[in-house]
Amino acid sequence: MEFPNCPIPTQKHDRITMAHGGGGRMTARLIENIFYPAFANRWLEQAHDGAMLSLPSSRIAFTTDSFVVNPLFFPGGNIGDLAINGTVNDLLCCGATPLHLSAGFILEEGFPIDALEKIVRAMQTAAIQAGISIVTGDTKVVEHGKCDGLFINTAGIGVIPPNIDIGLHRVAKGDAVIVTGSIGNHGVAILSSRESLGFESSIRSDTAALTSIVANLLAELPEVHILRDPTRGGLSSTLNEIAEGAKATIVIDEEALPIDPPVKAACDLLGLDPLYVANEGLMLIFLPDKYAKQALRIIQSDTHGKNARIIGRVTNNKKPEVILKLALGQTRIIDMLSGEQLPRIC
Amino acid sequence: MEFPNCPIPTQKHDRITMAHGGGGRMTARLIENIFYPAFANRWLEQAHDGAMLSLPSSRIAFTTDSFVVNPLFFPGGNIGDLAINGTVNDLLCCGATPLHLSAGFILEEGFPIDALEKIVRAMQTAAIQAGISIVTGDTKVVEHGKCDGLFINTAGIGVIPPNIDIGLHRVAKGDAVIVTGSIGNHGVAILSSRESLGFESSIRSDTAALTSIVANLLAELPEVHILRDPTRGGLSSTLNEIAEGAKATIVIDEEALPIDPPVKAACDLLGLDPLYVANEGLMLIFLPDKYAKQALRIIQSDTHGKNARIIGRVTNNKKPEVILKLALGQTRIIDMLSGEQLPRIC
Repeated sequence: MEFPNCPIPTQKHDRITMAHGGGGRMTARLIENIFYPAFANRWLEQAHDGAMLSLPSSRIAFTTDSFVVNPLFFPGGNIGDLAINGTVNDLLCCGATPLHLSAGFILEEGFPIDALEKIVRAMQTAAIQAGISIVTGDTKVVEHGKCDGLFINTAGIGVIPPNIDIGLHRVAKGDAVIVTGSIGNHGVAILSSRESLGFESSIRSDTAALTSIVANLLAELPEVHILRDPTRGGLSSTLNEIAEGAKATIVIDEEALPIDPPVKAACDLLGLDPLYVANEGLMLIFLPDKYAKQALRIIQSDTHGKNARIIGRVTNNKKPEVILKLALGQTRIIDMLSGEQLPRIC
Repeated sequence: MEFPNCPIPTQKHDRITMAHGGGGRMTARLIENIFYPAFANRWLEQAHDGAMLSLPSSRIAFTTDSFVVNPLFFPGGNIGDLAINGTVNDLLCCGATPLHLSAGFILEEGFPIDALEKIVRAMQTAAIQAGISIVTGDTKVVEHGKCDGLFINTAGIGVIPPNIDIGLHRVAKGDAVIVTGSIGNHGVAILSSRESLGFESSIRSDTAALTSIVANLLAELPEVHILRDPTRGGLSSTLNEIAEGAKATIVIDEEALPIDPPVKAACDLLGLDPLYVANEGLMLIFLPDKYAKQALRIIQSDTHGKNARIIGRVTNNKKPEVILKLALGQTRIIDMLSGEQLPRIC
């Protein structure tokens, strides 16, 4: 196993061994030397089977994601920041203020400890940027060949303010649909990096926690109806999930979709439809049309929201369908991803 | 991949494919056909990126565990009930009433859907027995050969009653040490099943959620100082963790340790020390000596506590050490597991 900027271990003790997962002295050492220094906080220091927490409210959001991205390191990030940002964004999608995350590691015997440290440092940085703490964790080791280097699971909890009500039941005719940034960057960056296609210099993953965008938006506009991050399956699959769950017709304006030129070029070359390519630092926002421009201003004032656009509208509340309005006035129905487009993008 | 009582799939559609992890139509179908029917509850039905919950209190416990047990099916259970019971017991160790779990699945391409269904049904049964609901989840698929059939991560949250204060800071000189049942069953059952040693008929995993034992105990005796489940690394490693964390000397009476005769015989034969063999449905309880007999009565009245014993005492609060008092009055220091004894037992 070789990784960028990580020296290849020459000593046995520079690699993960089965004993690191045994629950004894070696597990304790791994936790003390690598996880505690990076994630240090008073809850981890309880050193118990779980974290005991006092939340500011009993109305919470709870979510989980496992991360199996291949390769582990890619342009714009690695599996570590992805694992933090993904779960933070899922909490944000519930209208919650993200607070605490758990981290479960499954490590392959022989994995370089140096690469693990690099990933853990990325988690630390991402946690600080997202404003959350990693309060509890777990480490397992499987034999060489029984997993693909490293898998990470994170689960997260956040508190939902009393005036926030996000959900499929809120989607209504006339809602504006906003996307917070350009689509397709993450999926193309992963694919390019995996297959050494050479787009790595110009296309980077958009992985980011959208904590500040959502906090600023909900503070001014608690009327938001739905927040969703279009990750696996891309924009189309997420829009279809919303259309089906809310029994709504969503019309998207193709010309309004923000797509960075290098991503557009790469998709054309590879025969990929950017509507189905995964994103990681992106959010779809539905809210009453009268607030759309105000929302756009708030989002565009954030680093991660500069390319935000109003891309469409909910036209009725009966037929679950996503319609793409093409440049020349024609329309086509866009469906959920069927089959796989890009495996293991998160 | 063959599993007990699961027919070998003859059709491609009876197996997990990469598309099941793509986040599109196939992922949705897997969730609708297998996970929703088993775990059905109003939070899952929100069909959102996370569950939105109203807890009865804002003082909570939060924990996580990944499960990579090999084999997936073993005498007394499978990875499914193990994944529920393990996380439930970790919440109980915090003095919490377990409420909600997340479930993250990492599936290997080609895994039989029938075996997945069997595992999910075991999770459903275990969840009902433990009194918890699985409210959010995630499914990823990796290529054949990139994981070992199936890994499961669960995270859990529970609420801690106001009068409960469990932790290393509570451990005090004079505390009695109670174990809720016989030691070593889980580890020996897994090893025997993995290596086809033939003990499978007489030795079964003790996997179980100890919800009722802990609820009844804390209701009558909120003075409990510490609860810990001695899983990986066995009784010795957990006692050493407590001794180190609480700076306490713990003296254990070898003759008081409950060990089932078949486990004793298997350990003798295999050269295993039962003090280092993993348990799954077991708890170590520290509380003031004056409550020890009352606690023992409460625990022994439970199905999972019949073999409970008072096994030792905290003799001072200075030197972190675990001492085993042998049958003939001699003593020996027992250390934390160093290296690995039995890999992948949970």
